[in-house]
Amino acid sequence: MPQTTAAEAGLPATMTAIAISEPGGPLVLKPQTRDLPVPGQGEILVRVRAAGVNRPDVMQRKGLYPPPPGASDLPGLEVAGEVAALGEGVHRWRLGDQVTALAPGGGYAQYCRVHETNALPVPPGFTLTEAAALPETFFTVWHNVFQRGRLKAGEWLLVHGGSSGIGTTAIQLATAFGARVVVTAGSAEKCRACLDLGAVRAINYREEDFVAAVREETGGHGADVILDMVGGAYVTRNYRAAAEEGRVVQIAFQQGAKVEADFTQLIVKRLTHTGSTLRPRPVSFKAGIAAELEDKVWPLLAAHRVTPVMDMIFPLAEAWRAHERMEQGEHIGKIVLDVA
Amino acid sequence: MPQTTAAEAGLPATMTAIAISEPGGPLVLKPQTRDLPVPGQGEILVRVRAAGVNRPDVMQRKGLYPPPPGASDLPGLEVAGEVAALGEGVHRWRLGDQVTALAPGGGYAQYCRVHETNALPVPPGFTLTEAAALPETFFTVWHNVFQRGRLKAGEWLLVHGGSSGIGTTAIQLATAFGARVVVTAGSAEKCRACLDLGAVRAINYREEDFVAAVREETGGHGADVILDMVGGAYVTRNYRAAAEEGRVVQIAFQQGAKVEADFTQLIVKRLTHTGSTLRPRPVSFKAGIAAELEDKVWPLLAAHRVTPVMDMIFPLAEAWRAHERMEQGEHIGKIVLDVA
Repeated sequence: MPQTTAAEAGLPATMTAIAISEPGGPLVLKPQTRDLPVPGQGEILVRVRAAGVNRPDVMQRKGLYPPPPGASDLPGLEVAGEVAALGEGVHRWRLGDQVTALAPGGGYAQYCRVHETNALPVPPGFTLTEAAALPETFFTVWHNVFQRGRLKAGEWLLVHGGSSGIGTTAIQLATAFGARVVVTAGSAEKCRACLDLGAVRAINYREEDFVAAVREETGGHGADVILDMVGGAYVTRNYRAAAEEGRVVQIAFQQGAKVEADFTQLIVKRLTHTGSTLRPRPVSFKAGIAAELEDKVWPLLAAHRVTPVMDMIFPLAEAWRAHERMEQGEHIGKIVLDVA
Repeated sequence: MPQTTAAEAGLPATMTAIAISEPGGPLVLKPQTRDLPVPGQGEILVRVRAAGVNRPDVMQRKGLYPPPPGASDLPGLEVAGEVAALGEGVHRWRLGDQVTALAPGGGYAQYCRVHETNALPVPPGFTLTEAAALPETFFTVWHNVFQRGRLKAGEWLLVHGGSSGIGTTAIQLATAFGARVVVTAGSAEKCRACLDLGAVRAINYREEDFVAAVREETGGHGADVILDMVGGAYVTRNYRAAAEEGRVVQIAFQQGAKVEADFTQLIVKRLTHTGSTLRPRPVSFKAGIAAELEDKVWPLLAAHRVTPVMDMIFPLAEAWRAHERMEQGEHIGKIVLDVA
């Protein structure tokens, strides 16, 4: 396949990006002019039309989650747009193809380089804004709930933060694959949204103890898989809410990783507590998830049996507003940046 | 197959057993005369010649680990001896066969009933005293290290309490299957015993930090599987000593299950923390382990590539001395009762 440099393709030398000018609040996100990234071996350059906003971006902005070695210093872990240039050895994509991709960073920009194996076709009938809302939550849920958590049809899944991007994706995918989903969320409105997506029970954690509610809803069985990003006091409560041989999969510790925990149930119920973070994993690992998603989940998207829940869309230049919204915690589903 | 009752087989109506007269110290273990147990469907009655002593027996004696429903109130989880009577539907064994078996309880007695699928032949060349030292540690290590912990050839195993019955079994089995074993133990003598059994490094935990020692010994890799019965502060230290994708398998919490733990490494290294206890599991589950042991481990015993490490043998009537020795913590390998 021919390699096409940015210059040969008639691309501009520079682009607008949103950088983290210094660690701090949302207003440290500032437009900058940057050189276009150069796609390396096996990489494509995407002309970004939309970029998803994720909690790790907020952590990175605060200086709490530095980018892995070799990654862009710009925030942004998922993009959708057209292929604008091809690095050496790219097999699958051609210039102009519409893709949605997991990015190693640098998504808050007009151009972003991603590995070709970490890109997937935009599902038919999806806008690029919707497509940009897919990679982070779908890769994360697929790996943690299905691969790591081994959720099977007929089992019970408990999802904390049911109305988040991760939560709304987990509800739909687990339901589509025959599991029954219980969620926690922080308001009646969020609970309603989760029920609309297929959850069989939504627990308002401000009003109800989720351990007792899960026990009741599952007829005493407990949750076979628990997807948790809360940590803190939830660790021991998750162990109590879990079924025998249950799997607790941790994708973050928003309330802290240093915890006074009671491990009694871990051994009594033979639980498995595991977890992962997606960003530092190698491109080849993400490629494996991409292949499974394309095989098993993209047909569900094409059939509109599963769809991203869109919260709000902000222009790239107002990325700070997107972060503000995420930190206020009022959103339901995904927050996306529109990149002109 | 014919069913043979105790009376038909010319067996006595009563037997001597060691009972827990009340919860307390070793001296609450007292000889009693009991009726012979009656083997049920699929069960055999074993004329016990030797019975292994295990830490759960000590916990049960203290009143901290009540027998599961339906089990004998007598202590004792493993026996070796001859088949003395057959319950209905027993297929494999005949009267007089020498077996070693996992018992649901009641091992500290002249007769003990066990399920036929939880019994294995005495390996050739083994005394019944040695054979009685096998079931608890071999079933426990096989399930937790190989099935639950998925230890593979070439990986690193860290075993706490390396000189215990569990520890000495884990060292030998892991080494026989091509893993490299690092242990912790509490004295120079115990460390030497572990090295003699094949451990590549023995860490005297009174003198050396095991996290640093494991890191050093494995060239920074960490332990792929950790077998732990300590709990307490070891939980966080195990997470630190573990390799990426490492599995921490917990079989007890001798220093407590309520722990101030730091879960950061669980998610950063994508660890799996799991655990189990053997006793409450159904007979069918134990039968599955027995079948794998007979297939994969019994040949190693027959070839004397693996052998139980014998600490001391006490007469049944002096079971209290056996418990005293276990609680003093000076033993290396297994403590066994000789049943006349």
